[in-house]
Amino acid sequence: MSGANTGAQKHPLDTFFSPSSIAIIGASRDPVKIPGLLLAFLRKNQFDGEIFPVNPNYPDIEGLKCYASIAAIGRPIDLAIVIIPARAVLGALQECASVGVKHCIIISSGFAEEGGDSAGMQDAIAALARKTGMRISGPNAEGFYNEAKRVAATFSPTVDVKPDAPRLIATRRRIGIVAQSGGIGFAIYNRARALGIALSYVISTGNESDLGAGEFFDYMVQDPSTDVILLFLEGIRDTEKFLAAAKRAAETGKPVIVTKVGRSSAGGRAAASHTASMAGWTAAYDAVFAKYGFIISNDLDEAVAIAAVLTTSPMPKGDRVAVVTVSGGAGIWGADAVSAQGLQVPELSDSVQTTIRGLIPSYGSPRNPIDITAQAVHSGGLQKTIDLLNESDEVDSILVVISLSSETRMPFKVPELKPVIDTLRKPIVFYSYTLPSQYARTGLAEAGAVVLSGLTHVAVAIYQLIQRAKFKLAAPAAVASLNGALPARIGSAALSEYDSKQLLRDAGVPTPEEILVTERGALGDAIKRAGFPLVMKIQSRDIPHKSEVGGVRVNIASETEASAAYDRLLANARQHRPDAAIQGVLVGPMAKKGVEMIVGTVQDATFGPVIMVGLGGVTTELFKDVVYRPVPVGEAEASSMLQELKAWPLLNGFRGAPLTDVPALAKLVAQISQLAARLSGEVSDIEINPVLVHPQGEGVTVVDALVVPASRKGSA
Amino acid sequence: MSGANTGAQKHPLDTFFSPSSIAIIGASRDPVKIPGLLLAFLRKNQFDGEIFPVNPNYPDIEGLKCYASIAAIGRPIDLAIVIIPARAVLGALQECASVGVKHCIIISSGFAEEGGDSAGMQDAIAALARKTGMRISGPNAEGFYNEAKRVAATFSPTVDVKPDAPRLIATRRRIGIVAQSGGIGFAIYNRARALGIALSYVISTGNESDLGAGEFFDYMVQDPSTDVILLFLEGIRDTEKFLAAAKRAAETGKPVIVTKVGRSSAGGRAAASHTASMAGWTAAYDAVFAKYGFIISNDLDEAVAIAAVLTTSPMPKGDRVAVVTVSGGAGIWGADAVSAQGLQVPELSDSVQTTIRGLIPSYGSPRNPIDITAQAVHSGGLQKTIDLLNESDEVDSILVVISLSSETRMPFKVPELKPVIDTLRKPIVFYSYTLPSQYARTGLAEAGAVVLSGLTHVAVAIYQLIQRAKFKLAAPAAVASLNGALPARIGSAALSEYDSKQLLRDAGVPTPEEILVTERGALGDAIKRAGFPLVMKIQSRDIPHKSEVGGVRVNIASETEASAAYDRLLANARQHRPDAAIQGVLVGPMAKKGVEMIVGTVQDATFGPVIMVGLGGVTTELFKDVVYRPVPVGEAEASSMLQELKAWPLLNGFRGAPLTDVPALAKLVAQISQLAARLSGEVSDIEINPVLVHPQGEGVTVVDALVVPASRKGSA
Repeated sequence: MSGANTGAQKHPLDTFFSPSSIAIIGASRDPVKIPGLLLAFLRKNQFDGEIFPVNPNYPDIEGLKCYASIAAIGRPIDLAIVIIPARAVLGALQECASVGVKHCIIISSGFAEEGGDSAGMQDAIAALARKTGMRISGPNAEGFYNEAKRVAATFSPTVDVKPDAPRLIATRRRIGIVAQSGGIGFAIYNRARALGIALSYVISTGNESDLGAGEFFDYMVQDPSTDVILLFLEGIRDTEKFLAAAKRAAETGKPVIVTKVGRSSAGGRAAASHTASMAGWTAAYDAVFAKYGFIISNDLDEAVAIAAVLTTSPMPKGDRVAVVTVSGGAGIWGADAVSAQGLQVPELSDSVQTTIRGLIPSYGSPRNPIDITAQAVHSGGLQKTIDLLNESDEVDSILVVISLSSETRMPFKVPELKPVIDTLRKPIVFYSYTLPSQYARTGLAEAGAVVLSGLTHVAVAIYQLIQRAKFKLAAPAAVASLNGALPARIGSAALSEYDSKQLLRDAGVPTPEEILVTERGALGDAIKRAGFPLVMKIQSRDIPHKSEVGGVRVNIASETEASAAYDRLLANARQHRPDAAIQGVLVGPMAKKGVEMIVGTVQDATFGPVIMVGLGGVTTELFKDVVYRPVPVGEAEASSMLQELKAWPLLNGFRGAPLTDVPALAKLVAQISQLAARLSGEVSDIEINPVLVHPQGEGVTVVDALVVPASRKGSA
Repeated sequence: MSGANTGAQKHPLDTFFSPSSIAIIGASRDPVKIPGLLLAFLRKNQFDGEIFPVNPNYPDIEGLKCYASIAAIGRPIDLAIVIIPARAVLGALQECASVGVKHCIIISSGFAEEGGDSAGMQDAIAALARKTGMRISGPNAEGFYNEAKRVAATFSPTVDVKPDAPRLIATRRRIGIVAQSGGIGFAIYNRARALGIALSYVISTGNESDLGAGEFFDYMVQDPSTDVILLFLEGIRDTEKFLAAAKRAAETGKPVIVTKVGRSSAGGRAAASHTASMAGWTAAYDAVFAKYGFIISNDLDEAVAIAAVLTTSPMPKGDRVAVVTVSGGAGIWGADAVSAQGLQVPELSDSVQTTIRGLIPSYGSPRNPIDITAQAVHSGGLQKTIDLLNESDEVDSILVVISLSSETRMPFKVPELKPVIDTLRKPIVFYSYTLPSQYARTGLAEAGAVVLSGLTHVAVAIYQLIQRAKFKLAAPAAVASLNGALPARIGSAALSEYDSKQLLRDAGVPTPEEILVTERGALGDAIKRAGFPLVMKIQSRDIPHKSEVGGVRVNIASETEASAAYDRLLANARQHRPDAAIQGVLVGPMAKKGVEMIVGTVQDATFGPVIMVGLGGVTTELFKDVVYRPVPVGEAEASSMLQELKAWPLLNGFRGAPLTDVPALAKLVAQISQLAARLSGEVSDIEINPVLVHPQGEGVTVVDALVVPASRKGSA
């Protein structure tokens, strides 16, 4: 056995996942405890390379020669699995490095997750990897399983081999699993295996002292034996590798299903302590996932159902679903379930209905849902209907809703069904409303189909398949939409609205014509330039929230009112914030009417700045209608963000209202995102709230803006 | 064997579900076809009453004497199962009635679902039942299964008995299932059975010629052996019985889980043809379900998970959940999942954490999620932690997140766990992230617990349990809030805004002071009474949508403007609707500011008028933030409708805004609902759009109103 990808370019981790030789440091004769399980699972799964147990206390274990030390082996080692007390690990690794071991997995616990001195030991391990080039996974890891090569480098009971249970394989394509929790990683495998989904690898990444989730993800992206990737994430540590892999997956079209936990306050609290890392801000993760077309799933069975559909189906051309059933009620439910995901279940044309009518009894229905009845199924009607729907251009995918609980009878002949499925150019999904029997699973697996048993999950999986088929990676942002010159250094002082708008203007973002009046005598001139009706706002770097101090006056219609407003704004500021340094009063024209939106950026600890756009006003908080992306975004990507909003119709001529200037808003979003990217490190947040979007061709108005320097975060 | 409820009051359907004698009309020797399966399943399930096969072609079947006719039996028959060609059914039923058979189930198809003559045969069956008092279920039914008495009056393969598979029973309480689809009804049973949930009855209602879903539902509500009811509905036919049963279930506190299909256009289309009945308007069904505290579930596994929790758990006192786990990642996911349902996963107090710390190793976590680690589980830590959480007043329910896939080992001793669960005063739910083994299911069933395997379903089930614990049936509406006198007869003519408001005012609903100006000369007087600024609106019974014809002018500030507006309104109406008969121009004061809401009623074909309240303006359509109830509602129920709105914070002092006059809005909702109830039949819709809700104590303003007579529905 050599590398995993014979003929393909070699990858340094090929010998990690497909080693020719494995040493178990800390091997044991006890077949129940973890060290013993590691050896037992490797052998039961018929690893066909060499195994070298290492333990000075035994001359041999289970018929294998046991070595006193790694050096005593005297043979090249691709992978060492380390399962000894934490204090002894670093020494063992040094010995591994000195004899040229290529990779290690540290199963042992008691490192960063314990804090204190133990965290220091993990740092030393990381340093050793950097110094020697020996790659290290873990500590606190559960190892991996390479199903194709039968390498069970793990103690997970899910790889224990049951001699009487043949492996069900329904898919030609394979999933790869990268999990920041061994328990969950192998649980995904456990459930996928039960459905008959083939696996390339499942890896539990542990504390990631050296090899991290991002790098393993990257391996699976380039690996030709992995077709669909499932990620279980608590918090990414090797962010750059992760992002590079994400981009590569998007470019090559390899689907990624991701579960990110730590979304809730309780979950985040636990994730932070569990992995000794930042759980990260969920919206930033989701922004990155959205950018690269990842399929987000927060449910194990749902994620596996999506994987099942992705590994068995071609990409659909549209969102029209045919529901084929043998039970009226179940078919209606199926139609409801896919419709609830926003998909179409169109009534079929008369000609297709007529053809179907020829295949089914009179009490069936050819309309869609298509009730072919149990009788027609038994006379081969299912295969014929599927064939017909495959040829028809009226539907894009097929959902079969059927009962597959019988242990002795199947509602179709596998040799008849298999060629139909083999030649299918559309996705087909089998859902059984009764619990599917192993007999039915086996028969359908032979035909190349997976049987799913959760209807909502099935509908979500079809929806996600359609979304995936439509996904296009956005073009890189054209930086030309900002001025070439960087704005002056931000410094650490707070910025007022006036300063913030000045910064935006310098960068090339259009802001309204406004005049900062710093002495009463200049008010008349400002009024002349702005024109009634006016808005007047107090400006002070010490007053970030002007309305809270009575610092805003709108709809000022005369010089008398303006004069009174000027005095009032200053008096209010002096009253509420006696120590504030006042810049002056900003005078500008009232903005034209428009749809009120909010645009902003936030600095995320893992991914850097993230741009947000949403419906403004009270609805922002009530309905949480906002969309995020990592910066920078181009105008096309910004435009597609807008279309993801529930409020998109408001921008797009809702109920006969005029179309708004979407291109101008998209340009603003792109500009702000690019500005945040440029100023990352200097600026923490940019908030434009609100921006008014005017009718088509009339642009947008940045009504208020606030740029928060990185050093001021939290002080406002 | 006699009736089901020995000691309790006899119910006429006791001998339907628990018959002492069963005749099978159309019995057959073929054990594979439906008539043969009926006999086989009855006997395999060990029905302990008498079985009389009826078929003139055989002297005996499977060792039982076979009779040439029902009359030939000469013994009392509690239940006849009819499985003969459709054309022969009515004659067989007449014979049954003549010899005093109590109940029949017609399995045969080919009646209303085929239309035409076949529908007529079903009508004759219904008439026979009414005339003779013999109760008839079906036709086109799949029968029922009474698990406690082992009566398998069905051909569903899910009741086929496997000698090597002992029935898993984890619950003391039993579910009853009423399904308008045999396939789905028995699929619910199939899945519930796999989890170890005990069953009273599952009944498939077929075409409901006589006995309908409502009446079966009613039977289960009064039946002491049924603790939780699951309904699968396409469209209710016996509405009054259904509503009476729903009310009784709510009053007695028996939980009901309901799935209503035909929600989508495709599903509704199929439901209408499948059951030869109205699928009904989903919002009306949901309104009824909400009124009676039904738990709505649109997923089979989710519904069964909710049933599992309801049959094993006491009611929780609040929404604080403890998540106990052995895997960090899985625990985080568990915390996320319950948090996503809006439940609390509070960090435990120092003192509780300290106690838990004593039970678990240093690398565990006592915070919540509580990671007790695999090590602590094996030393009995799970039972001790559960005991501790049971005593603590910091959490209200317990979610155990664990791996139960092993076929040979259990992470706890059943004899230790059972007493802990037996004495628990809080709900406990077991979720296995790996697929649970039959071994683990059996062990936990002995301890009285069900193992669930869908995390989202688990979280929803806990949420629904908490909602159910909080549910209180609203008090009947006090009709006193309307004037005693009925408004004048509506008639068939369309109503203008003026007419509609007049009708509301007559009924006692406060409307603004407005003057209908029918000649120019009266305008000045009207202005004097209303006061500037004014609103002026054209009034015509032929113009239901005034703004479409330029028929509304607002913010009129002077007599000159008012005069011009008067002319303009009339001119616009004449231009756009030259044939419209003009009533005049309605002149009133501009309304004070307020939160814009919409209140309305719609006439549903199944349940009659339904009242709706929602956030007005653009958000109504964009975010679909509306709540429905069947009419009439009282003010308390109207108030709780308002609290269900996502927009409730807007009425309730959102972001420091003043509280609004919620009592006035609730009173309006109650009044409109009561008016719709009174005028049901005469009026189809009432729409108040918008109504402005002013600050506390300042009431509401009905800005616009339209009452649509029943005869005019669709003509506007």
